[in-house]
Amino acid sequence: MSERDPEIQAVLSVISRGTAEIISEDELVEKLTRSKKTGKPLTVKAGFDPTAPDMHLGHSVLLRKMRGLQDLGHKIVFLIGDFTGMIGDPSGRSKTRRQLSREDVLLNAETYKEQVFKILDKDKTVIEFNSHWCERMKFADVLSLTARYTVARMLERDDFTNRYKEGKPIAMIEFLYPLVQGYDSVALNADIELGGTDQKFNLLVGRELMREYGLEPQVIMTMPILEGLDGVEKMSKSLGNYVGIKEPPKEMFGKLMSIPDTLITRYLELLTDIPMGTIETYAREMKEGRNPRDVKVILAKEIVTMYHSAKAAADAEDEFSRIFSGGGIPDTVEEVAVENGTNILSVLKTAMPSESNSQLRRYLEQGGVKIDEEKIEDAARAVSLTSPRILKVGKRKFFKLVAR
Amino acid sequence: MSERDPEIQAVLSVISRGTAEIISEDELVEKLTRSKKTGKPLTVKAGFDPTAPDMHLGHSVLLRKMRGLQDLGHKIVFLIGDFTGMIGDPSGRSKTRRQLSREDVLLNAETYKEQVFKILDKDKTVIEFNSHWCERMKFADVLSLTARYTVARMLERDDFTNRYKEGKPIAMIEFLYPLVQGYDSVALNADIELGGTDQKFNLLVGRELMREYGLEPQVIMTMPILEGLDGVEKMSKSLGNYVGIKEPPKEMFGKLMSIPDTLITRYLELLTDIPMGTIETYAREMKEGRNPRDVKVILAKEIVTMYHSAKAAADAEDEFSRIFSGGGIPDTVEEVAVENGTNILSVLKTAMPSESNSQLRRYLEQGGVKIDEEKIEDAARAVSLTSPRILKVGKRKFFKLVAR
Repeated sequence: MSERDPEIQAVLSVISRGTAEIISEDELVEKLTRSKKTGKPLTVKAGFDPTAPDMHLGHSVLLRKMRGLQDLGHKIVFLIGDFTGMIGDPSGRSKTRRQLSREDVLLNAETYKEQVFKILDKDKTVIEFNSHWCERMKFADVLSLTARYTVARMLERDDFTNRYKEGKPIAMIEFLYPLVQGYDSVALNADIELGGTDQKFNLLVGRELMREYGLEPQVIMTMPILEGLDGVEKMSKSLGNYVGIKEPPKEMFGKLMSIPDTLITRYLELLTDIPMGTIETYAREMKEGRNPRDVKVILAKEIVTMYHSAKAAADAEDEFSRIFSGGGIPDTVEEVAVENGTNILSVLKTAMPSESNSQLRRYLEQGGVKIDEEKIEDAARAVSLTSPRILKVGKRKFFKLVAR
Repeated sequence: MSERDPEIQAVLSVISRGTAEIISEDELVEKLTRSKKTGKPLTVKAGFDPTAPDMHLGHSVLLRKMRGLQDLGHKIVFLIGDFTGMIGDPSGRSKTRRQLSREDVLLNAETYKEQVFKILDKDKTVIEFNSHWCERMKFADVLSLTARYTVARMLERDDFTNRYKEGKPIAMIEFLYPLVQGYDSVALNADIELGGTDQKFNLLVGRELMREYGLEPQVIMTMPILEGLDGVEKMSKSLGNYVGIKEPPKEMFGKLMSIPDTLITRYLELLTDIPMGTIETYAREMKEGRNPRDVKVILAKEIVTMYHSAKAAADAEDEFSRIFSGGGIPDTVEEVAVENGTNILSVLKTAMPSESNSQLRRYLEQGGVKIDEEKIEDAARAVSLTSPRILKVGKRKFFKLVAR
């Protein structure tokens, strides 16, 4: 290909930050060059489930990339895949897919907006629903769509391959979902589609369908799946290893301080705008002996600043230092009233009603429970409350116990 | 199961004549018993392509079974699968499937009627088009349909299995066709579906889909695929081994007399109403020395009588005897005018313009061409036409050659 415009090259390096894969980079350069010449922004599509999740930093990897393209002047389509959601899966094979009403969908869209506009620019984001075109499609249109893709290629998708090999059923409707998603790209005439690396197959389907429908194929950009606070599993609410983008500053700060050192530079790259050069400097410094804890503080402050404010970040840091470095307790501590002499397990249950008994027992067994700095391990141990005492669970949870 | 009503048992044995498979016979007995009790006829479905073929005795096997059920008082739905025909196959993968307009479809339906009412009772036949319900279906309905069948089961269909194994593409639309056909049974709430043995898989899909939609599953009845006049390949127009149901009596008679002896009883069973007992007697007699030619005459006269008249059958027999037994020539012979001295190959081409040159040369090489009973083998041989002469090609084609 011809030599690249240095300006486009600079844009490309911004776009590529943290990206897992771009298919293809040459096509992306072509689209960017054309857009620069004509002044016509590119249409960037990213699809989201119609079930509104609590968004966390894992989701932000993709949303931040969308914001980046938005800041470069391109048109972002936040596409809610409500069509299949409203149908549900009548096969009953998918437990997670329950049928949503139009009201549910709109309500969920509001929940999305509340959260995503912490990252995306509200004024430059188009929120779209795929029911818009899917509901108008008739049987003949669907057949025409299915004529453009082969069974063998659909079976190449990893999860389908495995289930087919293992003799686990794949309902034919599941074969249609990637085509619906792909058709969305046709309907939007997307220039770029963003998604997690786990979406690569579906994004490619969109690319191929666009070609089949005589459109210029979209470029696909996949973003890595972010590891959770444990550094092993992917960040997810159900695994409890997440930082919600609406969490309070001190909680956010504390959680980020708990990540393993190995995650620091990855989080800096994917979750902040700190320049890559600076991040490389931090990495080199840690290698040469700088305490990783200091870099974690930079990370945590940066992220709290992004989602709250510099002030909130400074406060969170202060409190964190006082507790962990100084052995102090937080400014405000939740008060928990129990009867004098209650056993410690019941006390814990009262303080943290959402935790399971087995989890609470684990805290005790692992020595994570202290009353006034005395470690308690016996679940049956009675707690004397003649005067208020401080209960500490793990590194960051504090309660003030008072007699009821 | 309980002991069968002897009347139902008698009906069943009529229905079963020539049938390849009934799934399941018990269910069929149940349906027949209920129909007898309630007086409500069963709905019998048979599907046909929207492309109107020249119907031949091969098609009649199925149509005659439909007629049999009609004579027992049941409701016959002659279903024309126009929906997919009007869509065509946009993948371009199917060469035979061209897109039909509604006018084409209606025209083809007329062509069907002209032919099938030689076998079916016009007043008791419902002609239906599947576009009737398919055109009303939306994307959501299609997804709901595809939720009820698995990919693995669809891949079990022989032709799909083979193509998948051999790496030949199967467009996803092809996976939907059996579901469309199956859904037709749901829409009609069919009690019985008839089809050739090559349709077994599709008929079973209908059976399963009915169950999925909460309906009583249809009983499927498959009919054998009739061998053509050569006794080997299936009867088909493109192979030239067929007898059209609108062919003139003498042509029909002559063709039927040309079948191999091994086909006689099969043709009698599948193509006539001659009682099975009588057919068994013929079979035994042939085994004991009766000339198969005599039984073939019975077969040929019966079929000509069915599609034309007893008189036409008698005339056809007379002419056939005169030519083959008496060495005579037919009553009427087509006149062909060529220049005196034309070579025999050109003469043949003029007489039979639809035959290929290589086929004509083969007639010559195989000694099948005679002029006034003199065998001609040299393609370049000039034909003297100072007076009219009789050209005979094969056993049954005669032409009167005159000078132009």
